[in-house]
Amino acid sequence: MYPDSVQKIIDIFSKFPTVGPRTAARFAFYLIKMPSAEFEEFLDALDGLKKTVKLCSSCFNPSKEDLCPICQDKSRDQSLLCVVEKEADLASIENTKKYKGLYFILGGVISLRKNNKEIRIEELKEKIKNANFQEIIIATNPTPEGESTALFLERELKPFNIKLTRLGRGLPVGGELEYADPDTLESALEARK
Amino acid sequence: MYPDSVQKIIDIFSKFPTVGPRTAARFAFYLIKMPSAEFEEFLDALDGLKKTVKLCSSCFNPSKEDLCPICQDKSRDQSLLCVVEKEADLASIENTKKYKGLYFILGGVISLRKNNKEIRIEELKEKIKNANFQEIIIATNPTPEGESTALFLERELKPFNIKLTRLGRGLPVGGELEYADPDTLESALEARK
Repeated sequence: MYPDSVQKIIDIFSKFPTVGPRTAARFAFYLIKMPSAEFEEFLDALDGLKKTVKLCSSCFNPSKEDLCPICQDKSRDQSLLCVVEKEADLASIENTKKYKGLYFILGGVISLRKNNKEIRIEELKEKIKNANFQEIIIATNPTPEGESTALFLERELKPFNIKLTRLGRGLPVGGELEYADPDTLESALEARK
Repeated sequence: MYPDSVQKIIDIFSKFPTVGPRTAARFAFYLIKMPSAEFEEFLDALDGLKKTVKLCSSCFNPSKEDLCPICQDKSRDQSLLCVVEKEADLASIENTKKYKGLYFILGGVISLRKNNKEIRIEELKEKIKNANFQEIIIATNPTPEGESTALFLERELKPFNIKLTRLGRGLPVGGELEYADPDTLESALEARK
């Protein structure tokens, strides 16, 4: 129905998170109608993104350098590690300005249907092995998948004999960490047990 | 909070239809993690889209040539014009395989807040002037904006003295044409009045 080159871009956008074929088609039409100068700016920004940003080798947050500013910051509490599902969760916690430890981004959750290898469990163990953490906060989302992931992490990290905590249940059950307001997140950080 | 090049792409994606800053951030992280080969394919597809696809000069549907295949097809009923809001609506109607006339994409709706110049009313009048239509189907969505747009079109096209019809109300009120199934759309086409 659509020209090949339109169908091609619809197929690619359909794989983007939260995007289905209809939204992907809207994106294609939006791009076709986008003024050339703006389109060039978009291509440049994509190129710039891929050329200048990689994942921090220690926490996996997007970073311009091998180590992100948080991992480089020696004034942060090197004995405290916070494990989150994804980048946006790290950003939400940083936004409270109340957490001064380090982070680790799992890159997903344990799903019964999917392969567990999709989360960075080996990289997490490696990081813990090479550091001296006194406490690890398992800050997965209070969703069914987040809960299974937390249980999985508790089991996998038990041999390290490090205090494992969870975020306090100031968070509404069934909600998403990414959408919590800073105050709720702050209470959750303080009420961790 | 994010590196400049990440923020830049978030800003651009935030302007895409249906996308807010959180989804835009997810897109940015998705692209950062995308394997290089796949990313190159994405850039090539974008380039191909912009280089090979333009808007049909007669109906404004995306097309590889100056005139799209529908406008080029002389076997289609040249006396019948169907005016739709957007590209996806045209695709839905084509999908019924029951409509054999021509199309015109308005590119939007009349909004009380926005400037009416955003829809292609002058281009539509020009097209009607240079053709010999016996009937014009105003196929805007059965939403408040679609209804105002239909009323606006009825007023603007009245001087042409051409039969103006609307899609039959097989469509659920408040729904969107883009999401209608082919059978409902077919009934609506047949029940036009």
